[in-house]
Amino acid sequence: MRHILVIGIGAGNPEHMTIQAINALNRADVLFIPTKGAKKAELAEVRREICGRYVTRSGSRTVEFAVPVRRTEGRSYAGSVDEWHASIAATYERLLEGELGEDQTGAFLVWGDPMLYDSTIRIIERVRARGRVSFEFEVIPGITSLQALCASHRIPLNLVGKPLEITTGRRLAESFPHRTETAVVMLDGEQAFQHIEDSEAEIYWGAYLGTPDEIVISGRLAEVKDEILKTRAAVRERMGWIMDIYLLRKGADFDD
Amino acid sequence: MRHILVIGIGAGNPEHMTIQAINALNRADVLFIPTKGAKKAELAEVRREICGRYVTRSGSRTVEFAVPVRRTEGRSYAGSVDEWHASIAATYERLLEGELGEDQTGAFLVWGDPMLYDSTIRIIERVRARGRVSFEFEVIPGITSLQALCASHRIPLNLVGKPLEITTGRRLAESFPHRTETAVVMLDGEQAFQHIEDSEAEIYWGAYLGTPDEIVISGRLAEVKDEILKTRAAVRERMGWIMDIYLLRKGADFDD
Repeated sequence: MRHILVIGIGAGNPEHMTIQAINALNRADVLFIPTKGAKKAELAEVRREICGRYVTRSGSRTVEFAVPVRRTEGRSYAGSVDEWHASIAATYERLLEGELGEDQTGAFLVWGDPMLYDSTIRIIERVRARGRVSFEFEVIPGITSLQALCASHRIPLNLVGKPLEITTGRRLAESFPHRTETAVVMLDGEQAFQHIEDSEAEIYWGAYLGTPDEIVISGRLAEVKDEILKTRAAVRERMGWIMDIYLLRKGADFDD
Repeated sequence: MRHILVIGIGAGNPEHMTIQAINALNRADVLFIPTKGAKKAELAEVRREICGRYVTRSGSRTVEFAVPVRRTEGRSYAGSVDEWHASIAATYERLLEGELGEDQTGAFLVWGDPMLYDSTIRIIERVRARGRVSFEFEVIPGITSLQALCASHRIPLNLVGKPLEITTGRRLAESFPHRTETAVVMLDGEQAFQHIEDSEAEIYWGAYLGTPDEIVISGRLAEVKDEILKTRAAVRERMGWIMDIYLLRKGADFDD
């Protein structure tokens, strides 16, 4: 039976690779590398660098494939994502049938960790549900941008004994600061932090984490908000794309 | 100046070690290994195995130290933890002064990732605030049990575009299922999941994740609750200790 490895490759630093992930890379006959257009060429480049540095087994090959683009016009958010996943599932199915022999192992290299705001696992489950190609799969965890963010700022994610929420820019207003003292925002095209009005809130922001272009800014939200917005716009313009993440905090350890 | 490396070593599988963590281990003159008594001897053993397997630099040495025990009697939760951290900070200060030369580098090997329900970072900040010993420090992320849990169950942590909460057993009832569709419980001495009454809730549970003793159970909470309680009690009795974690979920992708 075909075997699929879904491998977390870390948040941008090739040294985020775990020994488990390196060993998995070296079990694969075929390494699938997604390309996302010119803007995110750097992301495909990191994957190629990882394969170049860590694949020691001979005889494996790399297959690059274009990831379908998500259409949003006239669609709800859920509808848009659902349609997009269906389209990626068809792409995966084609790759598995066309590029992988029946006893072979294929690897998908996933940015960060496949568990966190990534859909590779659910898309693979969709391919399985379609029933045209049978396979087994396993998941190898990887360092996420959330971990790289906390490491670079040298902060714990949670306050002592307290909960935290991981959310999206679209949902931030529901939770912070009234529902949780710690909110991490992973996907945010609209810089939702700028609409949080709370004089005690602090922000820990980072972009291109783990890469040579890493930038981090932290401080009282009201005081550094404008600096983050300005910096973000400038580097995004210069680089052509951005991946950023931030943590918002209000409160302190032991202030129950 | 003294330099401290706070290194995440993963959740039990020595292959969770990242290349960055291995390189950090090899920058250290002194490797500090906490011991937590006979019951958790296995945890110290994993740290020794990691050092044995990955330290290639000659001339570094290992210093084992006993971690103070937390006293709870007659103290609030916050007061108890605060006092405990103060006591560990005094231990760290003694180690840095006594075991580390002024230009040397010391490493603390932290289970999982130093950012997640671990206090090494805040204790090091306490040592710095005491002002007796000066140092710089940096943090290296590591694979957490949360990631090992999702990888073993081959599930995404979040539903599409939805938030999730990471919490403790003590606080679970506040959040799940009414406040969040996904709750991960990291520290739970009382198996708080058994008090959740919701016919649709699902649980993904795991113990000793990443180790040869790993056990995972998943299913409809109402149907597998008793099996988890029975299994947990039995393995805890047999092993003398337990580290477990679980994810509770209600709802599905795209059901906004």
